[in-house]
Amino acid sequence: MSQRLHLDEREASPLLVVGSVAFDNIITPYAKGERILGGSASFASLACSYFCPTQLVGIIGNDFDDIHIDRFRKQDIDLEGLQIDKTGPTFFWAGKYHENFNQRDTLETQLNVFENFRPDLPASYKQTPYVLLANIGPDLQHHVLDQMEAEAYVVADTMNLWINIMHDTLLDLMKRVHLLVVNDDESEMLTESNNIILAGEKLREMGPETVIIKKGSHGAVLFHEAGVFSIPAYPVTDLRDPTGAGDSFVGALAGYLAAVRRSDFAAIKQAMLYATVIGSFTVEAFSCDRLETAGVVGIEERRKTLLDIITP
Amino acid sequence: MSQRLHLDEREASPLLVVGSVAFDNIITPYAKGERILGGSASFASLACSYFCPTQLVGIIGNDFDDIHIDRFRKQDIDLEGLQIDKTGPTFFWAGKYHENFNQRDTLETQLNVFENFRPDLPASYKQTPYVLLANIGPDLQHHVLDQMEAEAYVVADTMNLWINIMHDTLLDLMKRVHLLVVNDDESEMLTESNNIILAGEKLREMGPETVIIKKGSHGAVLFHEAGVFSIPAYPVTDLRDPTGAGDSFVGALAGYLAAVRRSDFAAIKQAMLYATVIGSFTVEAFSCDRLETAGVVGIEERRKTLLDIITP
Repeated sequence: MSQRLHLDEREASPLLVVGSVAFDNIITPYAKGERILGGSASFASLACSYFCPTQLVGIIGNDFDDIHIDRFRKQDIDLEGLQIDKTGPTFFWAGKYHENFNQRDTLETQLNVFENFRPDLPASYKQTPYVLLANIGPDLQHHVLDQMEAEAYVVADTMNLWINIMHDTLLDLMKRVHLLVVNDDESEMLTESNNIILAGEKLREMGPETVIIKKGSHGAVLFHEAGVFSIPAYPVTDLRDPTGAGDSFVGALAGYLAAVRRSDFAAIKQAMLYATVIGSFTVEAFSCDRLETAGVVGIEERRKTLLDIITP
Repeated sequence: MSQRLHLDEREASPLLVVGSVAFDNIITPYAKGERILGGSASFASLACSYFCPTQLVGIIGNDFDDIHIDRFRKQDIDLEGLQIDKTGPTFFWAGKYHENFNQRDTLETQLNVFENFRPDLPASYKQTPYVLLANIGPDLQHHVLDQMEAEAYVVADTMNLWINIMHDTLLDLMKRVHLLVVNDDESEMLTESNNIILAGEKLREMGPETVIIKKGSHGAVLFHEAGVFSIPAYPVTDLRDPTGAGDSFVGALAGYLAAVRRSDFAAIKQAMLYATVIGSFTVEAFSCDRLETAGVVGIEERRKTLLDIITP
């Protein structure tokens, strides 16, 4: 039985999420997680499923257990777009966090079945009004948009890797995106400005009508035609594993917008409150564990706390 | 003719400010400033003077020009507590900022007349209800409080130097302070916690009923018995010299509280809005130059902009 927030009288729009599904080995200063569920689409779709019907587009290999499939099913996530490739194992990533969590090293990356992933959409997804391009190569993100048969509101995430090795493809993609979400390092790479206000303005000139720059434990800043909005991080005191914080942030963000079928300044600000809260759950445990147990009551409680913290 | 904001129907309380008055040589990635007015009490008293009558306690030497005295006079700052020591020059500091402004090196420090500074208070200051101990040695901060003849609300600033070389004296001082303002590095040094929420709680257990941790371009967080409040920095796009940002922040903060004669959670939150705005002016030019030209209209305009930025 899925958990879903009731945000609007009108029926929520579905959201199409495309990204990676992975197994991660994670070493933090406190603990190790081995072969735990990871990947941008896993975090994003589970986050999104609290807000609206979610269509998951991704690929898994011959080692992907039913127990993980059930985690998606439990939240009623539509898996018609989840490809199963029996010729090899699931995408695998291993990483290690430094003492203070503000840096991490990649120890190992095995693309496995992801190497030949082509995100072809089921016919039933091609008119979905809200699309989240979670973090994968911009070539694959383009391929998803190429298949859409109706106007969709497009939210996109990316990472430093793609800015380095697929720069032009990413710049082209930005022109097709309505809401771009990047972190502060990525915004500096893309704009060559370390002033977050100038960087946000420059990113908007590069295509997306709306931009959010995430600053990790310092919150996030929204740049919209109607103005700027700054929100702090939720006050987490028990940080366990930051992996997936950004993916679940953007999943909740896009999920909220689909749920209320809006993309105006006021709606995006509300979406950021929920996205901040969802990210705060994710980092309190390995994998999607805490994200899945947050619950609608827990989410609304933290949202109220966050509102109190930002109200002068 | 002084510029003063009108914040309350009741008459503003005066505020006693003690700290350093200095000449600075500053090198930034863009420009150099030579023998410009600096020191914690200069920034703090000029900031404070926008809010309430200000009493300046400090020391200057035989090289301190009338032109700088006039800067204080223009804002009606009471200079009875400003000692003039003709035996030597004014405190001098030279520093250089790195490319991105987030680090600086001290190139030279000449204590000069500051070496024998003993902040003895004029009789007329000893019952002032609001006291700001701007950044100077905690031994001198103690000496000021020792002379007070009435209960005062005490706001205090400090720096890494004093945490290192006068640790116990500073810990004793914290028990006499109502509102402690530190930056994130200092809070970590004092509490050994790099989690800002835990650090804020620990600092409150060390004495001050209220604590503000400043995070530079990421804003500041208030820890009060009644709750937590987080505020972003004002969106400055033309950063010229961060020197004095913290001093003017705390000056405006204490000045606002004196002006409204309050120290409750709601008042401190409002004070942080003004403090954030005042700090944003300071960093847009060398010395107190932009702080002095901000004007009451400019301050209120930025306060409104900041309110818009934090309102969901």
